[in-house]
Amino acid sequence: MTIDLVTLGEAMGLLTPTEPGPLLRRPLLRLGFGGAETNLAIGAARLGLRTHWIGRVGDDEIGDLILRELRAEGVAVSCVRDTAPTGLMFKTVGAAGQVRVTYLRSASAGSRLCPGDVDETLIREAKVLHVTGITPALGADPAAAVTAAVEIARANRVVVSLDLNYRSALWDPRTAKAALGPLVKQADVLFATHDEAQLLVNADTPADCARVLSSLGPRQVMVKLGAAGSVSVVDGELYRRDAETVTVVDPVGAGDAFAAGYLSDLVHGADARAGLSTATRAGAFAVTVSGDWEGLPTRAELHAFERRGDVVR
Amino acid sequence: MTIDLVTLGEAMGLLTPTEPGPLLRRPLLRLGFGGAETNLAIGAARLGLRTHWIGRVGDDEIGDLILRELRAEGVAVSCVRDTAPTGLMFKTVGAAGQVRVTYLRSASAGSRLCPGDVDETLIREAKVLHVTGITPALGADPAAAVTAAVEIARANRVVVSLDLNYRSALWDPRTAKAALGPLVKQADVLFATHDEAQLLVNADTPADCARVLSSLGPRQVMVKLGAAGSVSVVDGELYRRDAETVTVVDPVGAGDAFAAGYLSDLVHGADARAGLSTATRAGAFAVTVSGDWEGLPTRAELHAFERRGDVVR
Amino acid sequence: MTIDLVTLGEAMGLLTPTEPGPLLRRPLLRLGFGGAETNLAIGAARLGLRTHWIGRVGDDEIGDLILRELRAEGVAVSCVRDTAPTGLMFKTVGAAGQVRVTYLRSASAGSRLCPGDVDETLIREAKVLHVTGITPALGADPAAAVTAAVEIARANRVVVSLDLNYRSALWDPRTAKAALGPLVKQADVLFATHDEAQLLVNADTPADCARVLSSLGPRQVMVKLGAAGSVSVVDGELYRRDAETVTVVDPVGAGDAFAAGYLSDLVHGADARAGLSTATRAGAFAVTVSGDWEGLPTRAELHAFERRGDVVR
Amino acid sequence: MTIDLVTLGEAMGLLTPTEPGPLLRRPLLRLGFGGAETNLAIGAARLGLRTHWIGRVGDDEIGDLILRELRAEGVAVSCVRDTAPTGLMFKTVGAAGQVRVTYLRSASAGSRLCPGDVDETLIREAKVLHVTGITPALGADPAAAVTAAVEIARANRVVVSLDLNYRSALWDPRTAKAALGPLVKQADVLFATHDEAQLLVNADTPADCARVLSSLGPRQVMVKLGAAGSVSVVDGELYRRDAETVTVVDPVGAGDAFAAGYLSDLVHGADARAGLSTATRAGAFAVTVSGDWEGLPTRAELHAFERRGDVVR
Amino acid sequence: MTIDLVTLGEAMGLLTPTEPGPLLRRPLLRLGFGGAETNLAIGAARLGLRTHWIGRVGDDEIGDLILRELRAEGVAVSCVRDTAPTGLMFKTVGAAGQVRVTYLRSASAGSRLCPGDVDETLIREAKVLHVTGITPALGADPAAAVTAAVEIARANRVVVSLDLNYRSALWDPRTAKAALGPLVKQADVLFATHDEAQLLVNADTPADCARVLSSLGPRQVMVKLGAAGSVSVVDGELYRRDAETVTVVDPVGAGDAFAAGYLSDLVHGADARAGLSTATRAGAFAVTVSGDWEGLPTRAELHAFERRGDVVR
Amino acid sequence: MTIDLVTLGEAMGLLTPTEPGPLLRRPLLRLGFGGAETNLAIGAARLGLRTHWIGRVGDDEIGDLILRELRAEGVAVSCVRDTAPTGLMFKTVGAAGQVRVTYLRSASAGSRLCPGDVDETLIREAKVLHVTGITPALGADPAAAVTAAVEIARANRVVVSLDLNYRSALWDPRTAKAALGPLVKQADVLFATHDEAQLLVNADTPADCARVLSSLGPRQVMVKLGAAGSVSVVDGELYRRDAETVTVVDPVGAGDAFAAGYLSDLVHGADARAGLSTATRAGAFAVTVSGDWEGLPTRAELHAFERRGDVVR
Repeated sequence: MTIDLVTLGEAMGLLTPTEPGPLLRRPLLRLGFGGAETNLAIGAARLGLRTHWIGRVGDDEIGDLILRELRAEGVAVSCVRDTAPTGLMFKTVGAAGQVRVTYLRSASAGSRLCPGDVDETLIREAKVLHVTGITPALGADPAAAVTAAVEIARANRVVVSLDLNYRSALWDPRTAKAALGPLVKQADVLFATHDEAQLLVNADTPADCARVLSSLGPRQVMVKLGAAGSVSVVDGELYRRDAETVTVVDPVGAGDAFAAGYLSDLVHGADARAGLSTATRAGAFAVTVSGDWEGLPTRAELHAFERRGDVVR
Repeated sequence: MTIDLVTLGEAMGLLTPTEPGPLLRRPLLRLGFGGAETNLAIGAARLGLRTHWIGRVGDDEIGDLILRELRAEGVAVSCVRDTAPTGLMFKTVGAAGQVRVTYLRSASAGSRLCPGDVDETLIREAKVLHVTGITPALGADPAAAVTAAVEIARANRVVVSLDLNYRSALWDPRTAKAALGPLVKQADVLFATHDEAQLLVNADTPADCARVLSSLGPRQVMVKLGAAGSVSVVDGELYRRDAETVTVVDPVGAGDAFAAGYLSDLVHGADARAGLSTATRAGAFAVTVSGDWEGLPTRAELHAFERRGDVVR
Repeated sequence: MTIDLVTLGEAMGLLTPTEPGPLLRRPLLRLGFGGAETNLAIGAARLGLRTHWIGRVGDDEIGDLILRELRAEGVAVSCVRDTAPTGLMFKTVGAAGQVRVTYLRSASAGSRLCPGDVDETLIREAKVLHVTGITPALGADPAAAVTAAVEIARANRVVVSLDLNYRSALWDPRTAKAALGPLVKQADVLFATHDEAQLLVNADTPADCARVLSSLGPRQVMVKLGAAGSVSVVDGELYRRDAETVTVVDPVGAGDAFAAGYLSDLVHGADARAGLSTATRAGAFAVTVSGDWEGLPTRAELHAFERRGDVVR
Repeated sequence: MTIDLVTLGEAMGLLTPTEPGPLLRRPLLRLGFGGAETNLAIGAARLGLRTHWIGRVGDDEIGDLILRELRAEGVAVSCVRDTAPTGLMFKTVGAAGQVRVTYLRSASAGSRLCPGDVDETLIREAKVLHVTGITPALGADPAAAVTAAVEIARANRVVVSLDLNYRSALWDPRTAKAALGPLVKQADVLFATHDEAQLLVNADTPADCARVLSSLGPRQVMVKLGAAGSVSVVDGELYRRDAETVTVVDPVGAGDAFAAGYLSDLVHGADARAGLSTATRAGAFAVTVSGDWEGLPTRAELHAFERRGDVVR
Repeated sequence: MTIDLVTLGEAMGLLTPTEPGPLLRRPLLRLGFGGAETNLAIGAARLGLRTHWIGRVGDDEIGDLILRELRAEGVAVSCVRDTAPTGLMFKTVGAAGQVRVTYLRSASAGSRLCPGDVDETLIREAKVLHVTGITPALGADPAAAVTAAVEIARANRVVVSLDLNYRSALWDPRTAKAALGPLVKQADVLFATHDEAQLLVNADTPADCARVLSSLGPRQVMVKLGAAGSVSVVDGELYRRDAETVTVVDPVGAGDAFAAGYLSDLVHGADARAGLSTATRAGAFAVTVSGDWEGLPTRAELHAFERRGDVVR
Repeated sequence: MTIDLVTLGEAMGLLTPTEPGPLLRRPLLRLGFGGAETNLAIGAARLGLRTHWIGRVGDDEIGDLILRELRAEGVAVSCVRDTAPTGLMFKTVGAAGQVRVTYLRSASAGSRLCPGDVDETLIREAKVLHVTGITPALGADPAAAVTAAVEIARANRVVVSLDLNYRSALWDPRTAKAALGPLVKQADVLFATHDEAQLLVNADTPADCARVLSSLGPRQVMVKLGAAGSVSVVDGELYRRDAETVTVVDPVGAGDAFAAGYLSDLVHGADARAGLSTATRAGAFAVTVSGDWEGLPTRAELHAFERRGDVVR
């Protein structure tokens, strides 16, 4: 069976209090997992793509959990079980809805990803390779793995998708810019928030950011603006799209939902307008549900989403 | 002790996840029960009426639960313990607050209700008989039971109240219209949503719907418009009433609360304006509490409701 | 990829209170799923077999849940999504540990299994076909499906395994005996409790039951005795084995664990003594964990089980 | 409708941590209610008696809760809603299963019970009046209420049942003996633990205690010995009965279950041996379930209890 | 170590349902504690003051809990362990967010506070003494304790802070006015809601209230207006401040947060504008978190509060 | 205020599922903390000693939690807030009660403990210094910190107490023996399990182990045997003591409870027999409560423990 989309990166255990407030208050915690790339793989799978994730987890129970859930979601996996432990993150919600994610990922299994883990055949036969700006921040080996994967993709005319995903806990803006700049040039599709875009280019408005980024290489650039929607440049044309009005339950995962929506439409051959609509609605849907990926929609759910607020019986 | 209001219909076990999201995520579930007619009976009892419910439940633990709770709420009961199992329903909340109710009620105890279950003396001595459009949809026997009950009421000048309660899972609009039309003609009091009204009559605005429905027989017709309030025709006069402004926690049960409020005032001899006020506030109160009937107010609670948002100590 | 073991039967949603006591007390319920054949398929998969389950579930959220979990457990599936709803069962624990399972499975999707659902190629290439005495009790179509599957297996020298699994809620002993007798004759491997054995043969002690059952056809007969262990006849030889001493947390699933242990060893070519040891330890392990199949062990867990009671750090 | 058994006393809100350990650890608490006399009334109702409780609760939510649950259990009620608050108790489980009950009942509504609350007609027409040694300890008014009730009963040949129920938190042994001595003389049926019996009489063995107590007046004296069963003297004859073997989940309520079992058989005309059997099994059943009264059995449950440990399906 | 702020008053156990709705529905309850003065002491400690609380709790588990938590929060304590039980309160949330606090505090340990409990040295060396209008309402002894403390403070030029905190459950407006009037005159800093201010002075607008109150003695008067912010008179100058816009999770504790914010700035030597800003943001922060004092902010949290709504990672 | 006992070592966040089973099943987790030395410090504080803990935690929420709880327990603290994160451990319960503790402590704050953290004055003025065999396993710096602390203690005639606490996840037996041997020689009081004792000395029975260990230096050697009690050599005399009979809820923490019991009696001047009795009962008490240190008893609880199984009211 061929694969539509391949991605690689780190997945970690995710601990989330069952109620808002600091860990100090000793809340009950839910155990799940997350990671930008596995979120994306799950999201794209739910929207109909055959997806494959490459990564490393520890030979421990959290690693078992991650692999079991990916199997459940129908995401194919190439995964080394490392002797290092699977990383962990805590997601807490503070006063007035401030979400804080903290990591125990130094020396984790996932950060040992290396070029040798990258399966050339797999990428060569895929339609899209998706990478994020998190992986290069994890160390020299993971950065090299991303570079290797992108080179394979470009050599085989596989679409390269990049989500900048800047993480201030992992590196500073300057180091990030130096590492992400070359990747942007090799990308066909680029996702960025306004802040992330401004990290890389000297431009002010979202539209300007999108145009400048597109001039660097990617033919499709999406600048995400949260509640203000998005501004995109696709094949030189500018698209503005408002966000959907929803009550935010959990903002984490919105960007992965957006990218999953756009890329699944891309693979299915939809045009930019349709792709941006799917991306926007997927992002809106995702934030109304708790969990980093649990709220990613299926096609059927996106469809039913139009009738939100109703009682169906 | 005489009874103020008699109603008949199906009550079922009700499974509700403790948090939003699909059953797929394996949430914890609360076990309760529901049913439009038992909801109404509880609501009217809390507002001061002596109410009586006629129905069937299985000889099982869910049946025990239903009877125990009705006893706790002070609703008198005529109930056959059937060999068929008590029906079940799931109430889930999807992305962005979409509520979905699904049923396991085919061949249930409640759907075996039949004319023989209808206690003539009971109805004859009551002030109001309340029926809903759900029961005729459950089968020929339940439909015959409703017809029998309505005939007894009419023969004895007992007020007949009908809530259309169209359920798309049970029948299609055409069949429903054929069955509900004759009932509407025999009703004195009629409750309908705008959609339900338009199922039966060829009219556009809520006011037109109410007028046309009233012309078919019922002297009191309430067309409910959710957040837009209600439009009613009582004794030929038109009443418009805005809804109360509240944050909706659980929309299910609002209609039953509305009917309970109106009918309890009717029995107590209040005029249309007062009845519609009670109905409106009861509906608003109900949706701020989770549960199909748990949020139905007492008179004291309706009164305290005016001070909502305060801290009382 | 070839399959080691194929099984077919009904899987249902499973509702289990989070604490002992009747449903009347309105406990929180956990939602899971169960079914003798899916339990067996999961158990055998955990012990290293490639397993495949054939069945029907409704096109509803409970059906989604079942398919997601089987995917997570690595069980391959041939499953019709039926218009009938997925069946449900409640498992409650009464005073002093009495477990009661009640069903809402009449007219369920799973009971619509029919010969057309049976994939001949799949069975022909498997090493073992496993069926239970539950499926024939569900109706004429499911019974015919079992018969068809067994005939395919026998025609292709695939080992036929049968677990009697008598369910008093589904049929009476006489009807069961008439239906199960012919199946026993076609089985190579037979699992039965002492009570189930006596349902079929006129014998007293477990050893006599095993011998008489074996004389009817199956070369391998296991009579399970709960806390008293088991008595088996394999290739004419009698084996007695004590149970492991454990504290029972949830007795349901012990028999499926036992069969999974025995069959996985059978496929792996182990001898009877080893197979019975694995079966016994798997059964013991399973009852120390809540859930019908959640407590089924992997090989590694069976191994660690020897050190039970220890603190490992 | 005539009443079989009338009882009077204090019912209080009951707060129980959901897990063992001191309140200091800030556990979640379940809210229920309890009281020896309401426990007894519920237990006897479940075993088939028409029971009636006389008492006082506050005009508050705990009072509402108590009345709602009694209604649910089918216990008729004569209850003053007092301006004083409903009392409260905490039931915690310490290390190694030590249960501790602490009270906030001083100046509670329930302790304002007075002779004027005692409905003479009700008692006169009942078959049994049941009182406990707790009520006289609550103050002069409650003590007078008990005295008044007992006098009405004796004047009308209603059986007087007394459970000594000594509470060290309420009074000291000497005061208790002075108050309970006269009550014992007026009782027909007397329940006591060995410790309670020795509080009143100078005797050593349970049998001697029972004999001496019986010589003071009561023709039926049951001395309860926990895991060692009971020793009784009924109409001068000595009965010894072993306890049932069960795992204790919650020891509170065992005595009330025992009395409910005995008294319900008494009203139904069973002989002493049968009554003691019912009492013993009811007590055993009750301690296998958490809650002061929630585990009190129905006749059907007592019957099913014989098959404890089985899986029924 | 010197103390910055001394306060005295009653702390009680606090029972809060884990979900909205009346106690009648038998919710799970969280056990915590509260009390205006301990809330204030914790809030001020979190904002950097060394605080000390004087009071009485019972020699029971609730008393243990209160002392353990105050220790955890770094509040020093002078506490008599009384033979009377620690008081209790229930905080329930009704339909549409109405919060109701009910008390079981009559004859509680905390209400036995007396002048002998007041440690003169402690107050003499503090910078602020904070008292509330609750304590004088608890009885003659607590009222005398407050009077004694205020006199010590004034004699030693310690700033006297008073929060009117009128509780209708404890006394009527007239009695309250008579008792609180003299305290107001002795206060340097006064906190009041608009309603509380109007209880004491004959003025209409908040600004007029503040001015008149200030003319009675206190140089600093804060009139709190909930969502409408606050109006203050400090050293004769009028300050108006809007509230912060937040979603209210639990309104209880807002006033204590406000006072803690103001007083901590006062001790740190900040000017009125800064103090009112800290007070306002502390109050806003507190209501976004459940719990009477759990949501009181640290300086770091107040700072991070500016970025509310963001995801930090 | 002088300190009785000083200890140093690593404290970590502790995640414990709320129900048995692997993390794979995605249980809810409780968040707490643990560490042999903080457990000991809490246990000794509850038994009346003034205790002080030296260590490092991260500048994160888990670190906040640890410091807050130690404050709550009255343990004084010298703690560096490190830039490295606080370590974490998971404690899961497998089939049949097997407890497994896994760690995320590599590069943790706690493992950066170094000699500079050791406060000479503190140790010099204490009565006992307690160290464990875990700290030297965390790295060269922590090992040096232990050595430094022991040398200060010996130079000032402070009693040195050592609990071997071998952790197989941290080092192998040979390395451990090489590091722990010198520590044993410097210890006055030594705690070891039978396995740990045999790691260090070539002896067979517990008594022989105790004698040989004592000959190496420590005048007081306790060899703990779990359910088989303990064998000790104190001042050359052999003591055997049976364990208390209890149902084990959580075995973790038993050793720390034992040491806390022994050392608190030592400081209070009790003789060996009394100390071993306190140690044994404290260990038994601790395992009946969940949590690593939550179940450590106070003197009052140890006393009440004698009446275990009773209902007190």
